[in-house]
Amino acid sequence: MQEPIVEFELTKEFRDRFQEALDSRDEAFIRESLQGIKAADITALLYEFNPEEAKYVMDLLPIEMQAEIISDLDSDTRKKNLKVYQPHEISEFLNHLASDDTADILHELPVKEREEVLSGLDPELRSQVIELLRYEENVAGGLMAKELMKARYHWSVVQCIDEIRKQAENVSKFYAVYVVDDQDKLMGRVALQDLIITDARTIVGDICEKDIISVETYLEDREVAEIMRKYDLESVPVVNVQGQLVGRITIDDVVDVITEQAEEERQAMTGISEAVEEDDSVWRNARARLPWLLIGIFGGLMNAKFMGLFEVQLARVTAIAFFTPLIQATGGNVGIQSSSLIVQSLANPNFVDEGLWKRLIKVFFVAILNGLFLSVLVLGANVLLFGEYTLSLIVSIALFSVVVFASFIGTITPLVLNRFGFNPALAAGPFITTINDLLGLTLYFLTIRLLLI
Amino acid sequence: MQEPIVEFELTKEFRDRFQEALDSRDEAFIRESLQGIKAADITALLYEFNPEEAKYVMDLLPIEMQAEIISDLDSDTRKKNLKVYQPHEISEFLNHLASDDTADILHELPVKEREEVLSGLDPELRSQVIELLRYEENVAGGLMAKELMKARYHWSVVQCIDEIRKQAENVSKFYAVYVVDDQDKLMGRVALQDLIITDARTIVGDICEKDIISVETYLEDREVAEIMRKYDLESVPVVNVQGQLVGRITIDDVVDVITEQAEEERQAMTGISEAVEEDDSVWRNARARLPWLLIGIFGGLMNAKFMGLFEVQLARVTAIAFFTPLIQATGGNVGIQSSSLIVQSLANPNFVDEGLWKRLIKVFFVAILNGLFLSVLVLGANVLLFGEYTLSLIVSIALFSVVVFASFIGTITPLVLNRFGFNPALAAGPFITTINDLLGLTLYFLTIRLLLI
Repeated sequence: MQEPIVEFELTKEFRDRFQEALDSRDEAFIRESLQGIKAADITALLYEFNPEEAKYVMDLLPIEMQAEIISDLDSDTRKKNLKVYQPHEISEFLNHLASDDTADILHELPVKEREEVLSGLDPELRSQVIELLRYEENVAGGLMAKELMKARYHWSVVQCIDEIRKQAENVSKFYAVYVVDDQDKLMGRVALQDLIITDARTIVGDICEKDIISVETYLEDREVAEIMRKYDLESVPVVNVQGQLVGRITIDDVVDVITEQAEEERQAMTGISEAVEEDDSVWRNARARLPWLLIGIFGGLMNAKFMGLFEVQLARVTAIAFFTPLIQATGGNVGIQSSSLIVQSLANPNFVDEGLWKRLIKVFFVAILNGLFLSVLVLGANVLLFGEYTLSLIVSIALFSVVVFASFIGTITPLVLNRFGFNPALAAGPFITTINDLLGLTLYFLTIRLLLI
Repeated sequence: MQEPIVEFELTKEFRDRFQEALDSRDEAFIRESLQGIKAADITALLYEFNPEEAKYVMDLLPIEMQAEIISDLDSDTRKKNLKVYQPHEISEFLNHLASDDTADILHELPVKEREEVLSGLDPELRSQVIELLRYEENVAGGLMAKELMKARYHWSVVQCIDEIRKQAENVSKFYAVYVVDDQDKLMGRVALQDLIITDARTIVGDICEKDIISVETYLEDREVAEIMRKYDLESVPVVNVQGQLVGRITIDDVVDVITEQAEEERQAMTGISEAVEEDDSVWRNARARLPWLLIGIFGGLMNAKFMGLFEVQLARVTAIAFFTPLIQATGGNVGIQSSSLIVQSLANPNFVDEGLWKRLIKVFFVAILNGLFLSVLVLGANVLLFGEYTLSLIVSIALFSVVVFASFIGTITPLVLNRFGFNPALAAGPFITTINDLLGLTLYFLTIRLLLI
């Protein structure tokens, strides 16, 4: 009797030992060490090696496992690794994958190669995949798989189970049988457990659950994710505009959507402009960071030019310069906080849209409260630390205005970005900070102009 | 024949009309408008009303639906809403929920009320829940449900199906039967579809999949999520240290873990110090923002004090002040980018730990590349815009140093926070910006001291 295995852990020692075995083409060691390891673990291991080495390892594995690994790899690595394969070899993998995974991989190939790979697919898979390739990758049609269990409304449970027997080899994971009418229109679903516990002569239409959630092919992937999360669905049927059942989406695809979204949002927020990972090359890392740094630099130069207009005042009261970092940092922080909260509520489509005005009024009150608190605090601190009454008052007035205006900009920017179809999370990063830096400086020197000189 | 329903949309008009109906206790309207709506949609609607109004709506619904809604609500709202219920009413709900959801809700109640509610539970559920309450909420034991389908190794498929018939009313969603030996040790699993298509006399032990993934009760929830994502599992069995099957975790629980994690990370990154939503009160919104703003203010005051030490130099060359925003903003941006990439790779436990040195050396090269590029660019721009050669050179040298040092601090801070058990995402927010503001200023004035005066 065998123990249930626990997760395989990829250690640096194992990686190094494996690299040695690869260098010396030590097939025996490699075969032995891959014994009993799951495909997902081999995938993780392959990230450590170059495409030729990865192919050498893959060639020692059963074709089903190779297919699973290819499908598991992240898109960038897969593109790189597949370069060392012939189109007919790729077709061979794909013939062991589900239609949705096959379509995802084909999307990544150059058009010419895609056609060659397509022509090597089994006829049924090919026609399924050709249908899937019509959809954008970020809509329900692009997420769905064609493989599903389908039963007619008037079938008996016995007929249904017979059909499952026939279809079982094509459908690897299923939780329910979808029930359709003679025009393939989706009518409902029967849970597998209900098929097991129901009398064999019962008509499927009588035991099927009827008011089920389905999604249309063109629904955006993040909306599909939200629906599955909200209604706790492990799979959801996809229908076309005629209401005909055309595919199904399973929760594992949606988990990937959620994870990718969170990652995209983080990158947008922290000013990294292309998908990049710490272990990508130095060059790529540098390039991904540059665009936002340049925007920051441009903002900084504008700041310098602007301050130059006040050279006379600065020369007279040098201490004016001391407080620009305080004003700007607070503006930046308030702006990011505000936009982050808006991004959060935009990500949650459940909320009832309160209308722009109600929102702004609320943000305004929060800003007044924090602005008052901080500016009184800073007034006290400045009088104690620097003893300059007029300047301290000016700093506090500017600080208060900055908190209010930065809240406003932080609130409005993600809403505007979202309206025009950009990722609103962009507003929770360097973009908003750059704007608020300039804003802070302007308000500060405006106050100085009005009150000091 | 009924159409499969699509998602219900909560509009402002409907909400307002519903509020009117609630104010006039218009039972007929409320009953009618809730007809055919799913529990998850009613949950979304209830967020719009106060606890008494919510209870009024709930009381018009079947008890199973009430239970589902209570379990769907977010923790804060649930706590508020349950205040208007008696302990025995709460027990009634819970008797219609699974053990994991029941335990989650009990965790939120005050100890005395928890005991009263526990005593009102059905004996079986009570003993299951008492076991679950022993675990921390953020480990596998705290996520798992006790309800599962269990079969002995030596049973036949027929015995197994009989047992499913008996257990089916307690277990609402299941995808597999777990196979155990006589000591309850987990041996493997059988997919429901395999039970359907296999001959009834087959022994379960012969058709069960044996090398399955399981998790131990004390495994952290984010690790459970990572394992389920990696291996594409829709449910995972939980075992105790003796390897005995004690529960199972389903993918929907894990989707919640992933979503919460992303939200927590965003809040940490954007300087919001307690879980808060845009629609919470003005007071709460203001309070959640203050701590990080105060840290920013403190940093700003230190900046001011520090610049004060260079009053003589500033008075002589006012233009020095023009470039502090440029230097500080770039330092802030570089720091956040660096820490964001480290946070990302810390969140992905698949990577092989390269060792601190290798990491730092890479970060160093990226910083050199970007630092050189930016400082040459700024040198050119400054000479063109301001024509001050020495100061322009100083600014570029300081800028270069800031890019290098801020990269270093942005890399090391999340690693240190992580080592000491804090959320590393904290380092991708106001914290790192405040440190880098001070760092930028120090490097800038240090360069001035060395080269200018």
